[in-house]
Amino acid sequence: MSLSPYWLRDNCPCTGCRDPRNGQKLFQITDLPEGLAVAGSTEADGELTVCWSDGHESRYPLSWLEETAETSDGDGRTEQGRRLWAAADFSRGLPEADWSAYLAEPAERVAVLGAVRRFGFAVLRGVPVTEGKVLEVAESFGYVRETNYGRIFDVRVEADPNNLAFTSSAIAPHTDNPYRDPVPTLQLLHCLLSDAEGGDSGLVDGFKAAALLREEAPEAFGLLAGTPVPFVFRDRATELVAEQPLIGVDALGRIREIRFNNRSIGTLRGLPAAELDAFYAAYRRFAEITLRPELQLELRLGPGDCLIFDNVRLLHARTAFEQHGDRHLQGCYADLDALASTLAVTDRRLAALDALAELFEGEGAGEYLGEDVTMAQHMLQAGALAEAAGAPDHLVAAALLHDIGHFGGSGLELMKGTDNRHSHTGADWLARHFDPSVTEPVRLHVAAKRYLCAIEPAYRAQLSEASEYTLQVQGGPMDEAEAAAFAALPGAADAVAVRRWDDLAKDAAAATPPFADFRPLLMRVLNLTAGTSI
Amino acid sequence: MSLSPYWLRDNCPCTGCRDPRNGQKLFQITDLPEGLAVAGSTEADGELTVCWSDGHESRYPLSWLEETAETSDGDGRTEQGRRLWAAADFSRGLPEADWSAYLAEPAERVAVLGAVRRFGFAVLRGVPVTEGKVLEVAESFGYVRETNYGRIFDVRVEADPNNLAFTSSAIAPHTDNPYRDPVPTLQLLHCLLSDAEGGDSGLVDGFKAAALLREEAPEAFGLLAGTPVPFVFRDRATELVAEQPLIGVDALGRIREIRFNNRSIGTLRGLPAAELDAFYAAYRRFAEITLRPELQLELRLGPGDCLIFDNVRLLHARTAFEQHGDRHLQGCYADLDALASTLAVTDRRLAALDALAELFEGEGAGEYLGEDVTMAQHMLQAGALAEAAGAPDHLVAAALLHDIGHFGGSGLELMKGTDNRHSHTGADWLARHFDPSVTEPVRLHVAAKRYLCAIEPAYRAQLSEASEYTLQVQGGPMDEAEAAAFAALPGAADAVAVRRWDDLAKDAAAATPPFADFRPLLMRVLNLTAGTSI
Repeated sequence: MSLSPYWLRDNCPCTGCRDPRNGQKLFQITDLPEGLAVAGSTEADGELTVCWSDGHESRYPLSWLEETAETSDGDGRTEQGRRLWAAADFSRGLPEADWSAYLAEPAERVAVLGAVRRFGFAVLRGVPVTEGKVLEVAESFGYVRETNYGRIFDVRVEADPNNLAFTSSAIAPHTDNPYRDPVPTLQLLHCLLSDAEGGDSGLVDGFKAAALLREEAPEAFGLLAGTPVPFVFRDRATELVAEQPLIGVDALGRIREIRFNNRSIGTLRGLPAAELDAFYAAYRRFAEITLRPELQLELRLGPGDCLIFDNVRLLHARTAFEQHGDRHLQGCYADLDALASTLAVTDRRLAALDALAELFEGEGAGEYLGEDVTMAQHMLQAGALAEAAGAPDHLVAAALLHDIGHFGGSGLELMKGTDNRHSHTGADWLARHFDPSVTEPVRLHVAAKRYLCAIEPAYRAQLSEASEYTLQVQGGPMDEAEAAAFAALPGAADAVAVRRWDDLAKDAAAATPPFADFRPLLMRVLNLTAGTSI
Repeated sequence: MSLSPYWLRDNCPCTGCRDPRNGQKLFQITDLPEGLAVAGSTEADGELTVCWSDGHESRYPLSWLEETAETSDGDGRTEQGRRLWAAADFSRGLPEADWSAYLAEPAERVAVLGAVRRFGFAVLRGVPVTEGKVLEVAESFGYVRETNYGRIFDVRVEADPNNLAFTSSAIAPHTDNPYRDPVPTLQLLHCLLSDAEGGDSGLVDGFKAAALLREEAPEAFGLLAGTPVPFVFRDRATELVAEQPLIGVDALGRIREIRFNNRSIGTLRGLPAAELDAFYAAYRRFAEITLRPELQLELRLGPGDCLIFDNVRLLHARTAFEQHGDRHLQGCYADLDALASTLAVTDRRLAALDALAELFEGEGAGEYLGEDVTMAQHMLQAGALAEAAGAPDHLVAAALLHDIGHFGGSGLELMKGTDNRHSHTGADWLARHFDPSVTEPVRLHVAAKRYLCAIEPAYRAQLSEASEYTLQVQGGPMDEAEAAAFAALPGAADAVAVRRWDDLAKDAAAATPPFADFRPLLMRVLNLTAGTSI
C-alpha cells in the first residue's frame, strides 16, 4: 500500500495530535518537518503502526485506511448523493410529517430533515396557525437568518409592496435573495390563511433542471456555470449586489448551487454582443427547462402547512391569485449547515440509544463481578432506585448508566486486580452524547465510594465482599485532603447519590424494569423530545 | 454599435418592464418571443430609442450604453477592486474610528465600513466595555449570524473548552468556521479585559497570500483552488462538514474566498498518493506564505477595542498568553452583504443631502412663481414654521422639501398653464431616500390646497394672487366626494399642515435660516445618526 506521508501524518489520530473531544488538530501543517518520511511500519491487530522519521508514532485502524481509499460523497451539498427529481416522483405523496409527531419523535425529525437534504424540501402539517410560529419551526433545527425583509416576513397583498412577492401576480420559478452573498440556503413558508382562488405553490428541482441542460446542451451549461451574473436589489433602505453564476459548480464540476431569479438579474457588462447572445440563448434554454410541466411539483399550502425548502437548489413559484381572497403566509430564512448538523446529531443520539439497548440486552446479561445480579439488572435497579427517589432526569440517567464502562468485556480485568478505570471509560464514552450533568457523576462514582468510606465508617461496614475487594484495588478510602478536594468537585454530590443507589442495586429478588422503560427519559436527557435545536 | 438583442431588451428601463421602486423586472426571460430583433432605432437627445419586432419600444440613455460596454469591478467580493496588503502598508496607522464618532457621523461610518470592504478590517475604539455590546456593533451595519457558539461567544480561558480558541495556546493564522456553509463572512471581536501577557492579535491578508502563491507557484495555486477539502467540526451537540477548496476562485478565476484552518481540515479521501503528495506540498507552501513576518499585521486589542474583519479573506491569529492573566473578548459573526448595503445606502443618503444643499444654494435662489421670495427662501421658511410649531422631524422635513419637484427648471411650465405635477415628481424623487411619512405629505400638498379651498371658504379668500392662479391650473377646489376621499388618505392631515406653512412661507421680510441649519434634522430623518442598521 503506497501512502502519502504528509497526508498520513496529518491524519494521526493520537491524542497528542488531535483533541479527543472535537477532533481538532493540535498542530499546524507547517509544524511538520521538511522531508517527513515513514521510518518503519508494522501491521497487527487490525492496526497500522507507523514510526516517523521525526520520532513520532502513529496508529491507524486498517478499516480507516480502507475507507479513506474510497471517494466520499462530499458534504451532501452537491448533486452527488442527492436524489434529483421530477414531479411524478412524488405521485404517491410528498415528504411530510405532522408537527406534533415531528416534535415528539426524533425518527420523524430525521425523516423530515433528511428529506430536505435529499430532495430539497419537506412539508410539516398541523403547525399551529399562530403568527411567528415559523421562527419556532426554524429554531427546531437551526438558526433564523435575518435579512432586509426582517427575521420574519409576511407574504400577502400589500398596498405598497417593495417586492413582487407581496402582490397577487403569478411568479415564475425562482430562488430567493440571489443578490445576497451568502444567500440564505433555506426558506420556510408557513401558511396562516388561504381563502383566495389560486396562489398555489410550485417547486422545481433546479439541480435536475441544470442536469437536463448539461445533458441536452453541454455548452449552454458551461456558459451558465462560467459566467458570473450580477443580481441586484435596491430599495430605499437596501442596496445589494452579488455576482454569481446561475449554475454554481464546485471545483470538480458538480452542481452545487442554483441562483435563478429573472426579476433581479442585473446588467451583464463588458461582454461583446456575440457572447451576450450566447449567454442569453443559454439562459433562455435553462429557463424553458425550469418551466417544463413534468418538472413542476404543484402543492397547495393550507393553513397550518409549513414548507421547508433548499433555496440554493429548488426554485419555487406561485400561481396568480384573486386580489380579494385572503392569503397570508409567514416566512423566514435559515441555513442548511445547521439543519445537517441537527440531523446528524439526532441520528447519532438515536444510534447511541440503540447501542445502549443492545448492551443492556446482550452483554449486560452477563455476570457482575461476583454479585447475585447481572450487570444489566444492577444498572437497571440503580436507575429505578434513582427514579423512585424522585431524582431529576440527568441523575436517573447517571444511575442507570454508571457502570457502562464495564461493558466491552473488561470487567474481568478489574477482578484480576487492575483498576480498569471503568468510571472514566464510561464517562468518556457517554460524553460523546451526554452532557456533564450525566457524565460527571458517572466519572466520580468510584471515587465517591472511596470518599464515603473516608467520611462514613458505617458506610464501609455495609459494603459487599466484592465491593470491599474492589475498594482496595481502587486505592482504599480517601485521606482527609482527598476527601475535601472531592467534595469541592462539580457533580460530587450527584456522584455520592449515584453511589448509594449503586450499592443498593444488587438485589436478585427485586423486580427489575426493562431498559425500554428508561428510553423516554434518556430521550429527554438527550434533548430528543425537546423540539428545539440540539 | 452592435448590441445583443435579448441582452438589450432584458435591460429595458421602462416602467412596464421594471418596477421603478426597486428595479425588479416585471417579465420573465421566457416571455420574450423567439427571434426577437430590433425593427428600428434612432438616436436623439442622448437616448437610443429601439422599436422591437414585437412592437415594444425601449429607450436607453447613451451614457448607460457606454457604461455597460466597460467591464465592472464585480460585486466587490473578489480580489478585483480590493486593496491587497502587507503589514507595512499600515505603518502609519490602522483603519480605525472612535465608536462615538462612528455613531454620530455617517462619514465616519462610511470610512470604517469602506475599510472592511477594501482592506478586510477596521478597528473601533472606545466601544463601551459592556457584555453584549458587540451585538450592537454588528447591528449597526447588519445582522448577527448565530452559530453553534451562540449569537455571541466569549473568548477566554475555559475549564473544559470545546475549541482551542478558549484555551491560552497560541493559534496560527486561520479563518473561522470553515466547516460551515455558508461560512460567516464577518467576525467581530470586542475586547472587554486584557491584563494577560501576550494574547496579541495578528491579521494576515489571505487574498494577498493567495496572490503570492499564484505568482510564485501557479501550479500549487491551481491545486488548492481545484481541490475541495472537507472541513469538519464535531462535538457533543454539533456535526458540521463543508467541502470547499482552501482558495475559492470565481468562475473567472479571481480569488473570492479563503478557508484556512488546519485544526479542522478533515481527511482527503479517494485520491492516489501522488495527488495527495502534491496537494500537501501546495498546502504547506501556502501555509508558509501565511506565516511570513511581512504579512503579519500585529495589533493588541485593549479594553473597548472592537475589531471587525472579513472572515473569508483575512486570517487571524493569536499569540499565547499567560494562563493566569485575565483576558476576555466577546465575539459574534455577521455577513458582508448587509455591511455593503449599509455602506452603499449611507453613501447614497449623504449624496442626497449634498444634492439637496446644492439645489437650495444654486437653483433654489431663483424666482418662485411670481412671489416675493426665492424658491429656497420659501421652502426654508416653510421648514422653519414647521419647526417653530413643534412639528415632528418628518413633518419639518416634508415642509422644508415640499416644493423640491419645482427644481430642475420646470417651475415656469406651471406658470404657463400646465400642471407640472410638481408634488408627485418631488415625492417620487424623495422616495428614493425618505420614507412615506415625508413623501406623502409632499405628494398631497397640492391636493391639500384644493381640499382646504373646498372645506374652508376663509382659506381660499386669503390665497395670494399667484396661488389662486395655480389653483385653477391644478383643477380648482375639490368637490365633496373628492374631499372625503382625500381626508381618508394616510398623510392627509400632515399634508394639510404642510399646506398651511407653505401658504405662510412667502414673507420677504422674514429671517430665513440657511439650509445647513436643517442638516442635523434631515440626518435624523434619514436614519444617519441612529447608529442602527439602515
